Amino acid sequence: MFQINHHYQKLQAGYLFPEIARRVNAFSESNPEASIIRLGIGDVTEPLTPAVLQAMHTAVDEMSDRGSFRGYGPEQGYAFLREAIAEHDFRSRGVDVSPDEIFVSDGSKCDTGNILDIFGNHNRIAITDPVYPVYVDTNVMAGHTGPADAGGRYEGLIYLEANEANGFVPDLPAERADIIYLCYPNNPTGMVASKEVLQRWVNYARENRSLILFDAAYEAFISDPDIPHSIFEIEGAREVAIEFRSFSKNVGFTGIRCAFTVVPKELRGATADGEEVSVHKLWNRRQSTKFNGASYVVQKGAAAAYTEQGRLEIRERIDFYMNNAALLREGLSQAGISVFGGENAPYVWLKTPAGSGSWDFFDRLLGEAHVVGTPGSGFGAAGEGYFRLSAFNSLANVQEALQRIGNVL
Amino acid sequence: MFQINHHYQKLQAGYLFPEIARRVNAFSESNPEASIIRLGIGDVTEPLTPAVLQAMHTAVDEMSDRGSFRGYGPEQGYAFLREAIAEHDFRSRGVDVSPDEIFVSDGSKCDTGNILDIFGNHNRIAITDPVYPVYVDTNVMAGHTGPADAGGRYEGLIYLEANEANGFVPDLPAERADIIYLCYPNNPTGMVASKEVLQRWVNYARENRSLILFDAAYEAFISDPDIPHSIFEIEGAREVAIEFRSFSKNVGFTGIRCAFTVVPKELRGATADGEEVSVHKLWNRRQSTKFNGASYVVQKGAAAAYTEQGRLEIRERIDFYMNNAALLREGLSQAGISVFGGENAPYVWLKTPAGSGSWDFFDRLLGEAHVVGTPGSGFGAAGEGYFRLSAFNSLANVQEALQRIGNVL
Repeated sequence: MFQINHHYQKLQAGYLFPEIARRVNAFSESNPEASIIRLGIGDVTEPLTPAVLQAMHTAVDEMSDRGSFRGYGPEQGYAFLREAIAEHDFRSRGVDVSPDEIFVSDGSKCDTGNILDIFGNHNRIAITDPVYPVYVDTNVMAGHTGPADAGGRYEGLIYLEANEANGFVPDLPAERADIIYLCYPNNPTGMVASKEVLQRWVNYARENRSLILFDAAYEAFISDPDIPHSIFEIEGAREVAIEFRSFSKNVGFTGIRCAFTVVPKELRGATADGEEVSVHKLWNRRQSTKFNGASYVVQKGAAAAYTEQGRLEIRERIDFYMNNAALLREGLSQAGISVFGGENAPYVWLKTPAGSGSWDFFDRLLGEAHVVGTPGSGFGAAGEGYFRLSAFNSLANVQEALQRIGNVL
Repeated sequence: MFQINHHYQKLQAGYLFPEIARRVNAFSESNPEASIIRLGIGDVTEPLTPAVLQAMHTAVDEMSDRGSFRGYGPEQGYAFLREAIAEHDFRSRGVDVSPDEIFVSDGSKCDTGNILDIFGNHNRIAITDPVYPVYVDTNVMAGHTGPADAGGRYEGLIYLEANEANGFVPDLPAERADIIYLCYPNNPTGMVASKEVLQRWVNYARENRSLILFDAAYEAFISDPDIPHSIFEIEGAREVAIEFRSFSKNVGFTGIRCAFTVVPKELRGATADGEEVSVHKLWNRRQSTKFNGASYVVQKGAAAAYTEQGRLEIRERIDFYMNNAALLREGLSQAGISVFGGENAPYVWLKTPAGSGSWDFFDRLLGEAHVVGTPGSGFGAAGEGYFRLSAFNSLANVQEALQRIGNVL
């Protein structure tokens, strides 16, 4: 009989968000009158902005005429978008990234998972804990781990614990790691890494010839001017890092689907016999062979977010969500809860009251306040006893959620 | 130093279509006055149809209002599209496929590549030759082959040669294959498989507990009522097959990006120790973890192609392209060329005149007739001496191309 990838058998339960959806649906079915406020999955709620909408309509119109119709586009993304990204996300901040180092895709979830295609199977992988589950699950699927232990930690992975003692910004591992996943501003904790912290990581990677996979999906939410938006703001990073960016949260593209990945041309990895190979070329080959480019209509929408009008509108959206985050921080603190994050990220990370378990607190908030959050333990063993609330909702819903949470506590 | 996936080093040259693009660009730069007609890559040329355009505009409009805004959708695709597919592509033809066996994606190129994620590394893989290069390259990348020989064939793959003697429809292999890629209507030969041929494959797969990966991206172009559109029209196929479908060629979505994959719930594969596992569950886990759904706007467009008006419009498009195919067959035959395919598929497969090599004929057609086709050898060793022309162009361009080809020959 043909064989399946048996590494899938090691995966623990379902992916986090489907499990949340299952519990919410079950509650909703038995309590049809409950008005549920969702601060869980981190999905945006506000409409696309006028500049983006207009660009998408125009792109659809172009598809109605033979002369302006577009078929297959470049697998790496259209030049108009890659150039806008290079200019506004990097060069304008003094960061050296060229358009042909930018690979446009249909999502960062895809890119952070697919990137493993181009690496070997014997790298030592380090992740922070708690962490975005996709980094872990895709490594399990690729056979880079042993089985999970009772606490859900997989054999062979290096876990870097983020906790109150280290301000949720874990330090370098004692052992050598080949590939390190970093996400700042962090999902789920909402905490950020200073220039000094990132410089230590880049130095570590250069000394150990390691690779940093840097997830900057939330960089647009940074308000502190001293916090880097890109790993490439750090000296020496171009030789050791790949960066993931997304239009999901800032432009509101969770349902529209667009993201990009930056692979600098200096980055090199080794074959088993020590030959050094360009990672940029490998990713280009991977994307050309297994991907056919993001939708033209979507790319036109993303590009519009970089126009002068687009940038103003997106800024307004981010300010709106960050006002929600500030309210969440303030309201939860007043209710006697310890809160973290939420100042340079749309996530507030809170300590569950009276040491209750993450899923217990989830069930309690859902059952008594009809508010959906995300259990910290869903992001890893070190997230147990914590809980994530997202700032993505209307002002009224955030205010109402805070009131209900206050009543419950 | 961190290690790369060294299997990429085995890949021969670039992926076929980028190489064609490179040669066309080079020619175009040194001959800026030449008016090039592209019958190469198989990209559609005609605009989207009114029903599809209208649905996409409406979907963009929905994104402008908080009440109708859509964020993350189901990773498997929206129910409205999965239900339309199940009804019109399958049930209306008496084929038993349920909506939750349909996984909507952003492209068949992605799906046919990504599907390997869920299978083991020790399956014996069979492909036809010539073949869509993605099947081969993704197996090389996954480490399922040894190096290529001088003719470009990879060690460890089973090649099923399609040639004039077997009417370009190769028979079962003598040895056991675990996974078999079949594509009918075929890319590149344009030939189709009868019900009898497909039944033999399904019987073989059932006897050997093999898996058939059936690529039906061109099914909409079938005109002969006796030719199956889906492998699931064949008795017993639900236990041994996965089917790939695309909106690229029929709805004109090469730049819009939408496709789907059908994984029946009966399909089971084995773990290394012989346990039987649901392939549907594995693919669902893979897609939930590494993919975030196709764009909502795109899915609305695809669904509109199944409305009464949409179906009429798409039928008209297909008839238009198939008229081109008939003209190509006729014109090339009159020019003394042996032609195959083009009756139930938008591709015409021709024997290069006077036994010239495929790339030589490519360069000659480009240089003398300014017509771009695809060298048969780009699809595999058995394609040497053949050439593919696509019916995707305007009537005027097809007529002009035929005239120029006639003059050159």
